[in-house]
Amino acid sequence: MNLILLDPADLTDDHHAWVRDPRRLRHLREVHRARPGDELTLGVSGGSIGRGRLVSLDEDGARFALDALDQAPPAALDIELVLALPRPRMLARSLEHVTALGVKRITLLHTRRVEKSYWQSPELSAEKIHQHLVLGLEQARDTVMPEVELETHFKPFVEDRLATRLKVRRGLLAHPGMQAACPRGLTSPATLVVGPEGGFIPYEVEALLAAGCQGIHLGSRILRVETAVIALLARLG
Amino acid sequence: MNLILLDPADLTDDHHAWVRDPRRLRHLREVHRARPGDELTLGVSGGSIGRGRLVSLDEDGARFALDALDQAPPAALDIELVLALPRPRMLARSLEHVTALGVKRITLLHTRRVEKSYWQSPELSAEKIHQHLVLGLEQARDTVMPEVELETHFKPFVEDRLATRLKVRRGLLAHPGMQAACPRGLTSPATLVVGPEGGFIPYEVEALLAAGCQGIHLGSRILRVETAVIALLARLG
Repeated sequence: MNLILLDPADLTDDHHAWVRDPRRLRHLREVHRARPGDELTLGVSGGSIGRGRLVSLDEDGARFALDALDQAPPAALDIELVLALPRPRMLARSLEHVTALGVKRITLLHTRRVEKSYWQSPELSAEKIHQHLVLGLEQARDTVMPEVELETHFKPFVEDRLATRLKVRRGLLAHPGMQAACPRGLTSPATLVVGPEGGFIPYEVEALLAAGCQGIHLGSRILRVETAVIALLARLG
Repeated sequence: MNLILLDPADLTDDHHAWVRDPRRLRHLREVHRARPGDELTLGVSGGSIGRGRLVSLDEDGARFALDALDQAPPAALDIELVLALPRPRMLARSLEHVTALGVKRITLLHTRRVEKSYWQSPELSAEKIHQHLVLGLEQARDTVMPEVELETHFKPFVEDRLATRLKVRRGLLAHPGMQAACPRGLTSPATLVVGPEGGFIPYEVEALLAAGCQGIHLGSRILRVETAVIALLARLG
């Protein structure tokens, strides 16, 4: 928690915040080992960041006196991610990684090689997803929550919604064996599409190319989805 | 296991291999759902890779008939990694990530903010480290085992051994607040130095710069070590 992310409801007035939930209190106690008087970085969800002083930390919660919260959060990465739904534990970690890297729109997509049982995972509840996004934001000192969409049907998503998006954004399909090496340091908006462990099937590759994606690869090494997503975003960003 | 990594002892002659250890047999049965006649990718530790046909899979083990193993493994990344020893679970995952990305020399270093208890972790046994390296190689279809060194004393390592290495390699210290942005697509050998969660202390930063490192950063977002290492290697590689 490099930033304490405040919900607007945590603000008692313009200069005071009151944190009550057990997770943040435990983190303040056990990781920050915070004591009254300590200065910490805080930010309001969707808003700006700044410094605050811990006034009290007891069974009543943590109370902060805030300086002007007048710094902008770090710039977002203008790369949207379309990711074949990973297995639950990898999903949890990947949501944190890509949120920390600054992605603001994440689409979780069903594909042939996604196990159907993954869609029943408790990790896909709105609450669990929100928790992982918060962890990613707190890590990177960001306040702007990514939007996460679940797309359980490949064809209508790719043919309609993705194809429409790609009229104004560059589409990049990361898939082993594609012709172009992953570009470096994009300067225009893009949508990155990453398949499941085992990859997209040929029909899916064709549909994604037909929807306007350009095929790219990261070399001859086959990476786990979790590793590949970070490596691709780092090279593109 | 995108490649079945054979120990030279697994070869019964130039054209036959016999795999007997429970981990690989379970993987062949449960993940590959392999049946006699299936073609799989195999490679000899430290050597070349190729295709083989599963001849039998039973309580006796898995027997393969090998075609010529005549393909070179993927090119190594000419970036050595010096990493402050992470907590055990993150160490395990990071060893797999960086091995899959092609790093061939990994130095795990003690620094002020590394918890001393991490050095007692069973994850640091030679056997456990070897297991994670094998998983990374199998993932990336590589056969060349990275070398892992443990350096429990910061000062003599940095002042002597690192400074000597940096006479022939570019040293890059990744640390928030450094002046230069992380370079892209290095074309010469480099050694990348990454700190612990919480970062290097000022004395350590000074010692690393004095040993010949250039300070670099990945932007204003603070990333977990696990994420940062992958992002740095992807951008440098």
